[in-house]
Amino acid sequence: MSSTARSVRLDVNGFFSHMIGSYGFDGHDLDGVVPRLSAAVADLDAKRRSGALPFYDLPYDSAAIAACNALASELRAEFDTLVVLGIGGSALGTKAVLEGVPAASLAGGMRVIVADNIDPASFSRLLDGTAGVDLSRTAFNVISKSGGTAETLAQFLIAREKLMAHPSVGAARWARHIVVTTDPVSGPLRALAKAEGFRSLPVPAGVGGRFSVLSSVGLLPLAAGGVDIEALCAGARHADTLCCVADPRENPAALHAGLLFLALRERGCGIHVLMPYSDGLLRLAEWYAQLWAESLGKAHALDGSLVETGQTPVRALGATDQHSQVQLYVEGPRDKVVTFVRVEAHDGELTIPAAYGDKEEISYLGGLRLGDLLNMEQRATELALAESGRPTSVLTLSRCDAASIGHLFHLFEVQTLVMGALLGIDPLDQPGVEAGKLLTYGMAGRNGYAADAERVRAMLARKRDDLVLG
Amino acid sequence: MSSTARSVRLDVNGFFSHMIGSYGFDGHDLDGVVPRLSAAVADLDAKRRSGALPFYDLPYDSAAIAACNALASELRAEFDTLVVLGIGGSALGTKAVLEGVPAASLAGGMRVIVADNIDPASFSRLLDGTAGVDLSRTAFNVISKSGGTAETLAQFLIAREKLMAHPSVGAARWARHIVVTTDPVSGPLRALAKAEGFRSLPVPAGVGGRFSVLSSVGLLPLAAGGVDIEALCAGARHADTLCCVADPRENPAALHAGLLFLALRERGCGIHVLMPYSDGLLRLAEWYAQLWAESLGKAHALDGSLVETGQTPVRALGATDQHSQVQLYVEGPRDKVVTFVRVEAHDGELTIPAAYGDKEEISYLGGLRLGDLLNMEQRATELALAESGRPTSVLTLSRCDAASIGHLFHLFEVQTLVMGALLGIDPLDQPGVEAGKLLTYGMAGRNGYAADAERVRAMLARKRDDLVLG
Repeated sequence: MSSTARSVRLDVNGFFSHMIGSYGFDGHDLDGVVPRLSAAVADLDAKRRSGALPFYDLPYDSAAIAACNALASELRAEFDTLVVLGIGGSALGTKAVLEGVPAASLAGGMRVIVADNIDPASFSRLLDGTAGVDLSRTAFNVISKSGGTAETLAQFLIAREKLMAHPSVGAARWARHIVVTTDPVSGPLRALAKAEGFRSLPVPAGVGGRFSVLSSVGLLPLAAGGVDIEALCAGARHADTLCCVADPRENPAALHAGLLFLALRERGCGIHVLMPYSDGLLRLAEWYAQLWAESLGKAHALDGSLVETGQTPVRALGATDQHSQVQLYVEGPRDKVVTFVRVEAHDGELTIPAAYGDKEEISYLGGLRLGDLLNMEQRATELALAESGRPTSVLTLSRCDAASIGHLFHLFEVQTLVMGALLGIDPLDQPGVEAGKLLTYGMAGRNGYAADAERVRAMLARKRDDLVLG
Repeated sequence: MSSTARSVRLDVNGFFSHMIGSYGFDGHDLDGVVPRLSAAVADLDAKRRSGALPFYDLPYDSAAIAACNALASELRAEFDTLVVLGIGGSALGTKAVLEGVPAASLAGGMRVIVADNIDPASFSRLLDGTAGVDLSRTAFNVISKSGGTAETLAQFLIAREKLMAHPSVGAARWARHIVVTTDPVSGPLRALAKAEGFRSLPVPAGVGGRFSVLSSVGLLPLAAGGVDIEALCAGARHADTLCCVADPRENPAALHAGLLFLALRERGCGIHVLMPYSDGLLRLAEWYAQLWAESLGKAHALDGSLVETGQTPVRALGATDQHSQVQLYVEGPRDKVVTFVRVEAHDGELTIPAAYGDKEEISYLGGLRLGDLLNMEQRATELALAESGRPTSVLTLSRCDAASIGHLFHLFEVQTLVMGALLGIDPLDQPGVEAGKLLTYGMAGRNGYAADAERVRAMLARKRDDLVLG
């Protein structure tokens, strides 16, 4: 295999018995799942052609890409900072790219800050200037597909007030600082955009939050931040050519999903660790954690009983977490698959100087490149897990840049859909988060949710004081 | 119960059937584990008195606290930035406190940067000035108990060369920029400290990395950063008075460990999620993840067969991860306990302004405080999990400050030792990380590790090209 022509490679040797011994799979195991994988790939292809999976088309939407670049240019001309107000799928992809691409590639972009929580300590520091944000030079991109996300609306209301109260913004100009990304037709944010005259972009119909990074949700803030969003989309398009191959043995998304499914069902591996050996890719692992958890963690009826399924994603960071998690991975319960992400050519490479030639515990490091040491540690951890019979896979990026991150976005999205098909669940919904929303509305005193407030009171009244220790 | 006198409370109602239904425990289940918990608490007390668990004494060591404060004052007078070179237990506790305490409480401290990875992209930016670090005003605290940690030594060698090459530091002054924290007697870093004349502090004998945050490992950089380390230690001492209570039903460390043990053994909860509703406490969850994983993830012989045990820690962040992980927690496999950390009085509290009274989907938020909304979401998620029959616990901090973080450090450390006793493993060792170190030495060409290099070659040669997809 030639590595030069491939920006991202997937190595699944670590699932098989020739690498990890009797706990691994053999060709027969894989044969058993191939027909279901073939059917899943064919079904995805049919759904895509019918328009039921519009996220597939996002990286090909040159009009949307151009619109994001154009609005980003406007914003760059007027402001120097863009604060993204959004949470979950409205934030994680943007963070993944901004931290993943080489810092130097963002030169010329705005500073982009993603505010994806409602902790008052963080949000007050963002708005009061402590963190170096000058509101008169700051735009806010308010992102919520439904337009009704409580956290995002709360942030928006606070930011709105601060802008209105700012001496050089005020009631006449604050609306110019707001850009809304939401449903093209419905929802409270769309209504506000019309009423207040905010600039806005649509979230395309049928694209859920965790599949939306290559829509205006991610592309506007990324373009504003200086990311080459065309390269990002080109990486996704390249992955698409690989992930629509009919033969699952030649399709990385299908092959990986099939092996993760076998690990879950045949070996009880309920945990999938994604462990990049790259600081910048840690946020990508967090984006993946949403995709895998929220898409696959589902209860569904099967033959009259309730099946609760899913695989818990865990993000780890190499080499750091070798000193935190690897003891557990090597010796603990056999409930995990670890997928490493490895970067071949590191940005900012450094050579470790030779010194202290008389001290063997130090001198062996002299002359090594730091990134090579990092990659040796990745290989050592992979092989130590193999020696202890634990399954692994490795994604190798020739470089960590916008194209390779776009590639990973698409690869993981398709892998998730294939896994959902194998598990027999709908990977596109998230019914399990509704209960918590209703209970919050109840506590917040929202009209129409008095019964939920009463449920909270009744449950809290059941708590026993002797089970609360000081 | 009065909440005012208690800085940290533990609520374990969520483990029991009166809150979560038939999947929960009842008094009989708890009774069954109480004798073992009592024995574990008594055994820890005896070991502590014999000097076998010196981490217990760290918060009482006023001489060590004073020494750290004194050296921190020296460093503050000479430098404005302190870079910690360390990994795992040499880094995680320091990060947890620096991010956990109110930012305003650090006024007057040095900027402290923890460099706990060897990614060249990050480390080169740190040293080349891009991140605002001026080497002539920067000290490096090189921390490794053994003195032989490859990553830390590699960082040290690079930093040393940069200091020597800096026009206003150079060969005559670079050693003044290095402070070593390592074994008091042995190891390569101790030898270098003597040979080069570095300032240094000892890691007390018998204190392992993940139990070392309240030793010089954490206290020096924290004091330099402006943390009130006496308050931090006072919080740990207060927790000590609670966590040495003989009756496990009144001892939060023992009670929590006992219930987590029951959840693991009786309900198959192999995952422990720690989910603070506080941005600043996310690093504390990462410190905890090392403590829980590395202490408990162990293979051990029992009755002639190998038992592989442990519980996988997962860190999550509220409210953010409600939009990422909670779907899985509510509907997915019943393999988790979720422990929430809740802060009663938030730093920098903000009130959400009333606006858009005609839009009910927005206006219900008006007048709420942002921290109250955050805490409502914590409660809603806890109760949604209860309604779906999933076990939870809640740690409530009256404030998030040095004392409450010190409290949590000690509580979690004792909880981990009790859990180790219940599992029948040694929570203080980490034999499973050796294999990876040897393989790295082999690849790095270190003298004496040729056999390890050969093992790497042999394993890599077994990889099949058809299992690597582009």
